[in-house]
Amino acid sequence: MIGYYPFMVLPNDLLEASVNRNVSLLLKDGRLLDGKLSGFDQYMNLVLEDAIEKKNDSEPRRLGKVVVRGSTVVSISLM
Amino acid sequence: MIGYYPFMVLPNDLLEASVNRNVSLLLKDGRLLDGKLSGFDQYMNLVLEDAIEKKNDSEPRRLGKVVVRGSTVVSISLM
Amino acid sequence: MIGYYPFMVLPNDLLEASVNRNVSLLLKDGRLLDGKLSGFDQYMNLVLEDAIEKKNDSEPRRLGKVVVRGSTVVSISLM
Amino acid sequence: MIGYYPFMVLPNDLLEASVNRNVSLLLKDGRLLDGKLSGFDQYMNLVLEDAIEKKNDSEPRRLGKVVVRGSTVVSISLM
Amino acid sequence: MIGYYPFMVLPNDLLEASVNRNVSLLLKDGRLLDGKLSGFDQYMNLVLEDAIEKKNDSEPRRLGKVVVRGSTVVSISLM
Amino acid sequence: MIGYYPFMVLPNDLLEASVNRNVSLLLKDGRLLDGKLSGFDQYMNLVLEDAIEKKNDSEPRRLGKVVVRGSTVVSISLM
Amino acid sequence: MIGYYPFMVLPNDLLEASVNRNVSLLLKDGRLLDGKLSGFDQYMNLVLEDAIEKKNDSEPRRLGKVVVRGSTVVSISLM
Repeated sequence: MIGYYPFMVLPNDLLEASVNRNVSLLLKDGRLLDGKLSGFDQYMNLVLEDAIEKKNDSEPRRLGKVVVRGSTVVSISLM
Repeated sequence: MIGYYPFMVLPNDLLEASVNRNVSLLLKDGRLLDGKLSGFDQYMNLVLEDAIEKKNDSEPRRLGKVVVRGSTVVSISLM
Repeated sequence: MIGYYPFMVLPNDLLEASVNRNVSLLLKDGRLLDGKLSGFDQYMNLVLEDAIEKKNDSEPRRLGKVVVRGSTVVSISLM
Repeated sequence: MIGYYPFMVLPNDLLEASVNRNVSLLLKDGRLLDGKLSGFDQYMNLVLEDAIEKKNDSEPRRLGKVVVRGSTVVSISLM
Repeated sequence: MIGYYPFMVLPNDLLEASVNRNVSLLLKDGRLLDGKLSGFDQYMNLVLEDAIEKKNDSEPRRLGKVVVRGSTVVSISLM
Repeated sequence: MIGYYPFMVLPNDLLEASVNRNVSLLLKDGRLLDGKLSGFDQYMNLVLEDAIEKKNDSEPRRLGKVVVRGSTVVSISLM
Repeated sequence: MIGYYPFMVLPNDLLEASVNRNVSLLLKDGRLLDGKLSGFDQYMNLVLEDAIEKKNDSEPRRLGKVVVRGSTVVSISLM
């Protein structure tokens, strides 16, 4: 359905370029997860290192190494 | 199931024509994301640049470069 | 699973007949989107022109040209 | 996975027998939609004519001809 | 992924054995639907006859013949 | 994507080993269902016998033989 | 869509390396499940041993051996 658009930045390409860099995930339940992106798969499941979870009203929580399910992700910001 | 309708503007065509232009995304949780559309894939995952997040009651938040999951998008308006 | 029923109006056929006509979308979050249907794809993603968003308690909002994700649509009424 | 059970009324068969008859749809958000079933597809997207929407506390709303997304339907009652 | 387990009662087998018997459906929105199971398909869409809808605080509602979408069903109890 | 890991207990294997034993299901809406696991299919639809439903504030409810849709299950504990 | 990126830690690889180690699951309904990861499948359904469920306001609950549906998981942290 989609051809090859050389002028586009594909979501996948941006994620690939972000490996080993810091990203900030917004999850569907409103949590933010900051950490270093170690990898991802075709479902946009992601691996973060040194992940820190932030929720509006509670203390940041250190999660360390974490697998995040793509289906719970709203957006991935590069930092 | 759907043939070729020359008189139609397909969603994909409109998105393609919007690359490098400003768009405004409405997300399922009510957030608005404004930014320049850099690209998208067949799941309607989108790449925005210079993205700004607006939520009714809180300050706009600069997100910079961001990948947005298509499954969380309600609509994409051209600006 | 479904054969050919000449006596049926298929959803797809009705949408096709509605291109370039005004429609009113009801979205899952209760929003109404009125506009001219420019096209749609097999996921029922839709393109509206001159779209106006109405939410119960807030002012109508002009959206102009907009892609609406089929997965967020409840119903499409012909006007 | 499912063989042929002559003693069963398949959902699809009942819908087919209901074309051009009045049905009442219950939607996931609690709305009721009454109207004449004009057709449906394999996703249980439905076409209703002379549709009337009823919500507990608000006035019935005449929708006329409407496409309803199968994914938002809870049940379809024959009237 | 799953082989043949002669010692198992498969969900499909139990449903098949329940055709023309009374069942009670629990739906995702908390409704109960009681009625005679007339048939079902591979998506667990179900046909009930003489269906009665019960909601905690409201009067039981007679629905007659009804198609119930499998995706809204939590459980099916044999009565 | 996943090879053969002899050192793993696969979810499917554990379920198979649990047939004819008591399990406790946690459902998405917070209900608990206790009963004897009679079988399951590849969608993790489950058959329970002598099922008892527990909800925080209400009386336990005897459901007898029940088919539970896998898509509504959070977890399955062996008892 | 995704090629082979030797520099990436794939979600699947991290899970595989975590078998027989302690993990902490965050579920969509806010529950935390701590336990030893015994295995998982391609849907990210997981098997935990000696699982303990923690909910903000209630007592931790010992679940023992448990199958957790991947579709209800937000994240998996290594401990």
